Amino acid sequence: MGKCCFGVDVGGTTVKMGLFTPDGDLLEKWEIPTRTEDQGSHIISDIAEAIERKITEAGLVRDDIIGIGVGVPGPVDKNGVVLQAVNLGWGIVDLGSELGKATGFPVKAGNDANVAALGELWKGGGKGYDDMVLVTLGTGVGGGIIVNGKMVVGVNGAGGEIGHIHLEDNETEACGCGNFGCLEQYASATGIVRLAKRKLAAVDTPSSLRSTEVSSKTIWDAVKAGDALAVEVAEEFGDYLGKGLSIIAAICNPKVFVLGGGVSKAGDILITYVQKYYEKYAFHASRDALFRLAVLENDAGIFGAAKLILE
Amino acid sequence: MGKCCFGVDVGGTTVKMGLFTPDGDLLEKWEIPTRTEDQGSHIISDIAEAIERKITEAGLVRDDIIGIGVGVPGPVDKNGVVLQAVNLGWGIVDLGSELGKATGFPVKAGNDANVAALGELWKGGGKGYDDMVLVTLGTGVGGGIIVNGKMVVGVNGAGGEIGHIHLEDNETEACGCGNFGCLEQYASATGIVRLAKRKLAAVDTPSSLRSTEVSSKTIWDAVKAGDALAVEVAEEFGDYLGKGLSIIAAICNPKVFVLGGGVSKAGDILITYVQKYYEKYAFHASRDALFRLAVLENDAGIFGAAKLILE
Repeated sequence: MGKCCFGVDVGGTTVKMGLFTPDGDLLEKWEIPTRTEDQGSHIISDIAEAIERKITEAGLVRDDIIGIGVGVPGPVDKNGVVLQAVNLGWGIVDLGSELGKATGFPVKAGNDANVAALGELWKGGGKGYDDMVLVTLGTGVGGGIIVNGKMVVGVNGAGGEIGHIHLEDNETEACGCGNFGCLEQYASATGIVRLAKRKLAAVDTPSSLRSTEVSSKTIWDAVKAGDALAVEVAEEFGDYLGKGLSIIAAICNPKVFVLGGGVSKAGDILITYVQKYYEKYAFHASRDALFRLAVLENDAGIFGAAKLILE
Repeated sequence: MGKCCFGVDVGGTTVKMGLFTPDGDLLEKWEIPTRTEDQGSHIISDIAEAIERKITEAGLVRDDIIGIGVGVPGPVDKNGVVLQAVNLGWGIVDLGSELGKATGFPVKAGNDANVAALGELWKGGGKGYDDMVLVTLGTGVGGGIIVNGKMVVGVNGAGGEIGHIHLEDNETEACGCGNFGCLEQYASATGIVRLAKRKLAAVDTPSSLRSTEVSSKTIWDAVKAGDALAVEVAEEFGDYLGKGLSIIAAICNPKVFVLGGGVSKAGDILITYVQKYYEKYAFHASRDALFRLAVLENDAGIFGAAKLILE
């Protein structure tokens, strides 16, 4: 069968796993449940067993396996030590070393958002570039910064925490992180709903959003239908996110921004609103950045994890 | 004499040059004038001649020379191509290749602010760390981002343009770059003077600044003397700069911020005001960053340039 590696994306509910060729062909993917009980102490052995089982099933021999890359929902330092992963019940866990011992294979680990960025760079929306920023617009706003083809991990594993860029001095509600005015409060799925609800309460403009559940999907559907109030919300959303990305560009001058997560299901119309404000705020030398939609969806994590061990 | 290398920092008035050991000992430093006439077409040959002269003077042989690193006041791409250097009269100049041909030695080139950051990392305020941000508070605000010991150059050589982070939506005066509300408009030497003049015009509070020329130096002297209005200006300055640095930290999570340039001559009191607001705005995982004053002053460029060729 030739050389292979595993890409593992550990989430709070399931562990996604993939078997890859070194060229990035995904041979098989599957999931196992994440057992978060007992401070998540079964997770590592569950992953190790699933890998051993797959090796046997696939008729592989141990020498075929290059190693295992893993993405984890929390800060991970440059040595593969998880500093905390609340959703897994983990405090400090030396994942590289422990999963290495449990399997006998080389292991590399990283933060799940950073690892997903590496996946989108390798086989997704950032393919062909070396300097990319993944912006994941989900329940929160996450991201991963890629400079010269490598993840920016940072000294505490907190590189790419772009949801917590301070953008608004006048915010009165706290962000989940405890600060006020973070990008995440405006550009996440919950953020755009907040913007819409504030707008609906502040003005009397008729809108289809007054007679439906307000969600990222219904807002963008209304924008596409030309609903004037929804368009105002999209402009406000684009202003915050475009401004935030212009700031990232002044710092690391990427070639391409890749937009992923639930909000990005709105499609190309999202890029229209974000890029317009990006170009307004960006420093001239970084104004020509490209905007792309993410393409790997939930597989970005396993692709990036596999790439991590192949570097 | 053993192996040596040259570090060259090209400015609009003088070219600073240094002869270094591979360990970073500065053996000699000197300057030549920057001849900007004829679209700066003499600069490269002047540098080449100065290097040849120094090799002879110092009794070196050509085999002793590892190479030449150069910092230039403008964007420089990853291949050592200068994209523009207005102060030198240069458009696109393939400096790596042209100075290489003129001297016969390997050449590496980078943007002067990024190269200075590498110098401060190697032998200055960031010594001992791998993840550092240099913040140069001069006429403008420049900077250099170091991730894993390497400069963040960016795709157009515009990495580390931190003076042009957008921070203020309500600004009515344009920044030199044409945008409104850039960090540089508040945190540079001219920026803090603007803040002070606005404050002096807006309120009647007595202040020593009403009877002197308002400069970065007189403002910080007044702060140290307890002048209430000057202290308000320092708080406002610290709020803008601390906020800007907290945003950088959310993106690349450095271990240390090194503050240099003319404004940093204020000394440790500068750090007091910046760190206070940094900690207010920073995401918890990056809140523990260190703050240091730059130590190499005008030599940061030649040190960083030498390091560039030693990497």
